[in-house]
Amino acid sequence: MAEETNENKFKAPRGTRDFSGSEKRLRDAIIQTIREQFERYGFEPLETPAFENLAVLTAKFAGGDEILKETYSFKDQGGRDLGLRYDLTVPLCRFVAENNSLAMPFKRYAIASVWRDGPLKKGRYREFSQCDADTMGTASLAADAELASLAASILSGLGLNYSLKVNNRKLLNGLLIGAGVPREMLSDVILSLDKLEKIGENAVKKELEEKQLPAPVAQRVLSTLSPQATLEALTALAANDDAKAGLAELNEFFSYAKEYGCADKLVFSPTLARGLNYYTGMVFEGFLNNGAKIGITSSICAGGRYDELIGGFVKESGGAERNVPAVGISFGLDVLLEALKAQGTTLGERTGLAVFVIPIGDALPAIRACQQLRSAGINTGIDLAGRGVSKNLAYAVKRGAKYALIIGPNEIKEGKATLRDLNSGEEKLLSIPQVCDALR
Amino acid sequence: MAEETNENKFKAPRGTRDFSGSEKRLRDAIIQTIREQFERYGFEPLETPAFENLAVLTAKFAGGDEILKETYSFKDQGGRDLGLRYDLTVPLCRFVAENNSLAMPFKRYAIASVWRDGPLKKGRYREFSQCDADTMGTASLAADAELASLAASILSGLGLNYSLKVNNRKLLNGLLIGAGVPREMLSDVILSLDKLEKIGENAVKKELEEKQLPAPVAQRVLSTLSPQATLEALTALAANDDAKAGLAELNEFFSYAKEYGCADKLVFSPTLARGLNYYTGMVFEGFLNNGAKIGITSSICAGGRYDELIGGFVKESGGAERNVPAVGISFGLDVLLEALKAQGTTLGERTGLAVFVIPIGDALPAIRACQQLRSAGINTGIDLAGRGVSKNLAYAVKRGAKYALIIGPNEIKEGKATLRDLNSGEEKLLSIPQVCDALR
Repeated sequence: MAEETNENKFKAPRGTRDFSGSEKRLRDAIIQTIREQFERYGFEPLETPAFENLAVLTAKFAGGDEILKETYSFKDQGGRDLGLRYDLTVPLCRFVAENNSLAMPFKRYAIASVWRDGPLKKGRYREFSQCDADTMGTASLAADAELASLAASILSGLGLNYSLKVNNRKLLNGLLIGAGVPREMLSDVILSLDKLEKIGENAVKKELEEKQLPAPVAQRVLSTLSPQATLEALTALAANDDAKAGLAELNEFFSYAKEYGCADKLVFSPTLARGLNYYTGMVFEGFLNNGAKIGITSSICAGGRYDELIGGFVKESGGAERNVPAVGISFGLDVLLEALKAQGTTLGERTGLAVFVIPIGDALPAIRACQQLRSAGINTGIDLAGRGVSKNLAYAVKRGAKYALIIGPNEIKEGKATLRDLNSGEEKLLSIPQVCDALR
Repeated sequence: MAEETNENKFKAPRGTRDFSGSEKRLRDAIIQTIREQFERYGFEPLETPAFENLAVLTAKFAGGDEILKETYSFKDQGGRDLGLRYDLTVPLCRFVAENNSLAMPFKRYAIASVWRDGPLKKGRYREFSQCDADTMGTASLAADAELASLAASILSGLGLNYSLKVNNRKLLNGLLIGAGVPREMLSDVILSLDKLEKIGENAVKKELEEKQLPAPVAQRVLSTLSPQATLEALTALAANDDAKAGLAELNEFFSYAKEYGCADKLVFSPTLARGLNYYTGMVFEGFLNNGAKIGITSSICAGGRYDELIGGFVKESGGAERNVPAVGISFGLDVLLEALKAQGTTLGERTGLAVFVIPIGDALPAIRACQQLRSAGINTGIDLAGRGVSKNLAYAVKRGAKYALIIGPNEIKEGKATLRDLNSGEEKLLSIPQVCDALR
């Protein structure tokens, strides 16, 4: 604890980060790509406050005890109990509960920070960003398939090499029931199965036995469900209503995905479950195909259908009983940033400094040129410190500019400027309109 | 207080707002315009955490006692005292104090929420957004003029009819000292003068007398400084060093502004002071020229030079003594939004839904068309509820779509689709590539 309390108070708080320069530009460019596709797919932006009344965050249908331990809470001067949001789903539920005249289906996206006062480890922070798109008010598989297509558009748009694993909770439940798992143990067994690829069959078997699943049942579960089981093989085993409903959903989902042109990115993954209990139907999770090579094996996006959550929230908030089926997907900004950095992306460079204008002597012609460049849409810096050319060149390089534009007495006499490529050192004497053409 | 505590806990907290639909799209479009110009002018994005160590927010050179009363504060599980930021300037000071190898001048922008637990009135909220650009590490007037040009680019880009009032604190101080105001009363007198246009000469005179300024001095102050005094007239009165320095700054500033092409937007305003004590040189404040007509008389942007603040912060934080002169400007998102709404802007519409696809019968050809439209960059929705045509048309209108695209058996037979203008009701039978051309 000493280490925690003696830290420098004039630093960013523990578990938080400052983002600046090229890293921030890359973050913003990723967000811009995601936002554009969210809008392309007809999702409406929704911005909710950073904090909620604590009663919202602690509601029965909200995040639950585990996450409440990690919730930053405080009182305002009016004595109200407030808490920083720990996700974007609970504020969405509150918004839907509060606004009962929304045009349904209601499709909203949100890209914003959330806060969790949890233990720190590599890649885990107390402030981080979520990029969520959710469709509320329809149980149709068309909405689930639209989200898979959305994910494909975003991940392809970012230039990533990825697959989207998909599964269905009803199929999973049905197959487990068929193998003899009691209904009340389904969640527990699913949590263990979700680890099959990570810890292997023997470890999962041990876990299932520790959870008091009879050994023959555990054996049947593991012989039915392997990550490699095909949809065809499982179709033959789907005997009960749950399993049949799940299969029908998967087939309808795949038929839509084919029309959306994203079927080749989908991989049926019969043991995929997603950790959370609230999923009720389709679940999906995106992974990098080259993830192991670049050290990123965690999912890059994930989501699924949760048909009970919002309706429960509406009821608990004292609203009229409303059935609000929903399906959503969330993109991890931090992991996408790491993946793009690992593959040397140029995303975000466009918003950086393109050229830095350096006057020799009279500053006014340089300011005039700077104004012309900016009006032409070119991101332009200019000497603000009255320094000499070599110091200004060094500054331009440090700022990441690609070009310097030098304007001294000789240039002014000719009505031109010297454009210097800061990588090659090559120089050209050009008019300002020619410079604009060269840099655009 | 009863009213405050009995409110519905399942609403957004008091003093905060949800933004959705067209209002959120307009907000995002304004932010996008501001961000693009910030980048055009070579400012680097900086994102700092929502909360800071409380020691940062309470530092001597930070916001001061008044604002600390309005600071939301809390402890984390490690017992650290934290507080939500109340502005973007203190986090900037902390960042500069913490990073002593920044390339100077350091130009950063930040667009983000801040929180103040203050009294609520019209247009005043507990969560609101600031859009700040600041240049640190140079005392050159070229930086001040660049910010005036930046403001002009942003406000013109938004299509507003505005003026930028400018003044200089050194000139103001010099003229007041020349009129006999004791140095220790300068701030108090300036605060009263700042109200001249709002409350009139007599009320200001009364305030100055209440502040114990001798009547003849008050008389001289008011005959020297009126909002109508010209730069030429004041030049003749500028007898002391402060006033002369201020005049020289103003003249250099205006010569740069002329080259930037924004001089016609600038109005010299000799009584403009800006409320805050920390300004040391140029100050500026933007207003709508048609503000009175549309009920918006508050400033739409404001800023100035503050050469002492950051250096003081660096020293207080235990950093090595560094002189960090700075100049900044801040844009008010809420007031810009109100102004643009009042003049019926179309900004932000582009990111809304352009077309809504409605299948009759088989959904698959409609999904295929939807995919083609989205790939062509058109924001497209599609029926997700399996509803009939008329219900879908009503939904498309409610969602703000301009067109519906109907795809039924007849259309499929012809390899076409019916594009319906939702305003005029006019319909055309087109191929999907023709629809893309029509909507792009």
